[in-house]
Amino acid sequence: MRFDCMTLTTDYGYGAGFVGALHAVAYRIAPSLTVIDVDHSVPPQDVRLGALRLERFLRIAPDAVHVGVVDPGVGGSRRPIAVECGSHSFVGPDNGLLVWAAEAAGPGMRAAVLDNEGFWLADRSRTFDGRDVFVPVAARLAAGAGLTDAGTEVDPATLVRLERPVARVRADGVAEVEVLQVDGFGNVQTSGDRGTVAELGLRAGTRVVIGVEVAGGVSATYGATFADVGLGQAVLLIDSDGCLALSVNGGRADRLLGDGPPAVLTVAPA
Amino acid sequence: MRFDCMTLTTDYGYGAGFVGALHAVAYRIAPSLTVIDVDHSVPPQDVRLGALRLERFLRIAPDAVHVGVVDPGVGGSRRPIAVECGSHSFVGPDNGLLVWAAEAAGPGMRAAVLDNEGFWLADRSRTFDGRDVFVPVAARLAAGAGLTDAGTEVDPATLVRLERPVARVRADGVAEVEVLQVDGFGNVQTSGDRGTVAELGLRAGTRVVIGVEVAGGVSATYGATFADVGLGQAVLLIDSDGCLALSVNGGRADRLLGDGPPAVLTVAPA
Amino acid sequence: MRFDCMTLTTDYGYGAGFVGALHAVAYRIAPSLTVIDVDHSVPPQDVRLGALRLERFLRIAPDAVHVGVVDPGVGGSRRPIAVECGSHSFVGPDNGLLVWAAEAAGPGMRAAVLDNEGFWLADRSRTFDGRDVFVPVAARLAAGAGLTDAGTEVDPATLVRLERPVARVRADGVAEVEVLQVDGFGNVQTSGDRGTVAELGLRAGTRVVIGVEVAGGVSATYGATFADVGLGQAVLLIDSDGCLALSVNGGRADRLLGDGPPAVLTVAPA
Repeated sequence: MRFDCMTLTTDYGYGAGFVGALHAVAYRIAPSLTVIDVDHSVPPQDVRLGALRLERFLRIAPDAVHVGVVDPGVGGSRRPIAVECGSHSFVGPDNGLLVWAAEAAGPGMRAAVLDNEGFWLADRSRTFDGRDVFVPVAARLAAGAGLTDAGTEVDPATLVRLERPVARVRADGVAEVEVLQVDGFGNVQTSGDRGTVAELGLRAGTRVVIGVEVAGGVSATYGATFADVGLGQAVLLIDSDGCLALSVNGGRADRLLGDGPPAVLTVAPA
Repeated sequence: MRFDCMTLTTDYGYGAGFVGALHAVAYRIAPSLTVIDVDHSVPPQDVRLGALRLERFLRIAPDAVHVGVVDPGVGGSRRPIAVECGSHSFVGPDNGLLVWAAEAAGPGMRAAVLDNEGFWLADRSRTFDGRDVFVPVAARLAAGAGLTDAGTEVDPATLVRLERPVARVRADGVAEVEVLQVDGFGNVQTSGDRGTVAELGLRAGTRVVIGVEVAGGVSATYGATFADVGLGQAVLLIDSDGCLALSVNGGRADRLLGDGPPAVLTVAPA
Repeated sequence: MRFDCMTLTTDYGYGAGFVGALHAVAYRIAPSLTVIDVDHSVPPQDVRLGALRLERFLRIAPDAVHVGVVDPGVGGSRRPIAVECGSHSFVGPDNGLLVWAAEAAGPGMRAAVLDNEGFWLADRSRTFDGRDVFVPVAARLAAGAGLTDAGTEVDPATLVRLERPVARVRADGVAEVEVLQVDGFGNVQTSGDRGTVAELGLRAGTRVVIGVEVAGGVSATYGATFADVGLGQAVLLIDSDGCLALSVNGGRADRLLGDGPPAVLTVAPA
């Protein structure tokens, strides 16, 4: 495969110049590549959330080589890998970060362990594989190098896989969902989805109670968008990632949930 | 019109991947577009400040299609619009965000409500029109589609307009100005401008008092740049946006104004 | 020289649209330039840290015109300059920000004071030379203008130079190093380097004590990467910038050092 586009999803944040280093290295190897910063705000070392974001991004992603770096094991024994699937390639650590996105890209996954040092940056450091290994390899894959030029092909079944977040409806008709993230607007995204909504039998206007350790829980209305409830009111909806989320029209839903959102919420028809 | 450049001004912040999604969608539709991130740090849902930033940006903007998203009414009844003016186009919500910038772009404004769903992303969500409507439409306008291809032309007089921030000199010779923003250096930008300075009769070196609810107010000197006062001293100046601003040479002016800057300041010759 | 790439290193942060303005101006003058954001998170007005980041960036930088702006003296008497060295050019204030990077780019430095106003943005403000002077000049240098087209050549010996951070091993065998920065993962980067390690006689596995005003100091192990110590353990290593740094495997090293890291640390074999 050959790509005109590289995307970057990391937990590097916007300080200290990590992201700039990735762009510089990509440019040196493949100056005509378009490099898209998908997200550098994955919480530090939260591999699972990075994997979820990369997987969701695939719904709208252009054909590209996608570099993912959430890599608490950098410098250790975890394998650096590249994965090809459909019209996409993925490069990053073998810790579960890439495999859900690769599966979302289609059938026919192939994988390689990146052991061709000739594709790396000279003077590889031991703590910054994003700059020294992943982006250089991705840039060379984009330029037309084959997967097995970058390393030794391995069985995709050997790749590390993470546990998916739980979203289940209990026998008593109450859903338990995990909190995945709170965005800059205070929207609380959970592991629930349209299936959860169907199992709970929610329809537009259904009143629900979000169970948290706040006296009585939080009351909300199931709807399709913020404006389905009054200003300052809570709405439970399917968000733009397809996830069940709690929002407040014109306000912040995270503030309803006490100090820092809990790891798990319950949702029940009122 | 046809554009090689798209600009983005939003309140999305740099977390949760919203900005990356805009870039990905723009690239899919128009891969050769240059996409410039003007600003994603508009305070959440502060439409007026977003409108002011977009208007000021027009002074230095290249000919482009400009996407603006500060959109508390997303998913509700507010209209999605495109506006053409001079050698610029604007795409975003009809809530006042775009119209000042469009007027700054020249005479001859035309507007359309975006009701051609064929221009949107398939599977439009109800909470992320930036990704699903505005960027796809903007990318197609950039590629040469006409305004009326994107939707139904409407009278620009029907567009929502906001109240401009107030800057006035009272009968007692004291100016009242609104605080617009505090930047990362602590500079306090207000709604005053060169007209305010002229009305107050300020000249380089004039001593002024900034009235805030701090005993006695804050003393400053009117000048042209930080170095016109000593290190750690306060200077009132016209900033790089053309706004009257309070700064401290080598320090932070916001710290002079107590806990969080007030909404309104007074300025008077000492 | 002629460049296809411009890089940006500033203390502008990601708020208030400063960075977007640089991109807009670069695009207007040289639309085909690739513009790389190296880093906009230099702490406000910390010229020395900006200079160090720019110098380290040179190790991986593509041939480019590099704009650096950490400029507390903007609008005052400090000179705006351009410097050429090897296959790189640098544009910014003459306050020490650029010169270490220029020296890292090779021998044969030439410098000019930017006094050709024809290269600036019309209507130069007094507080935003990044937008009004440095980027416009850099874009014109990239397009092929000569150094002396931008201004008057001056002896590079006249450029302002800063004191380098101190890293020394005392007669008692204890190293004193300055804390340079804490990144988003909590890694504490210091002014020490491989020379410091050699002088201290550290080898993989050597136990060290980091002296801070916390009872007994902090114990760490010298190693090559995070995984050389157990989860939650402290490791002293040479980081990806070549700097001696204190890290915690799977954790934050800054939290070991009390409230805010001290300016100077001692390092001694245990």
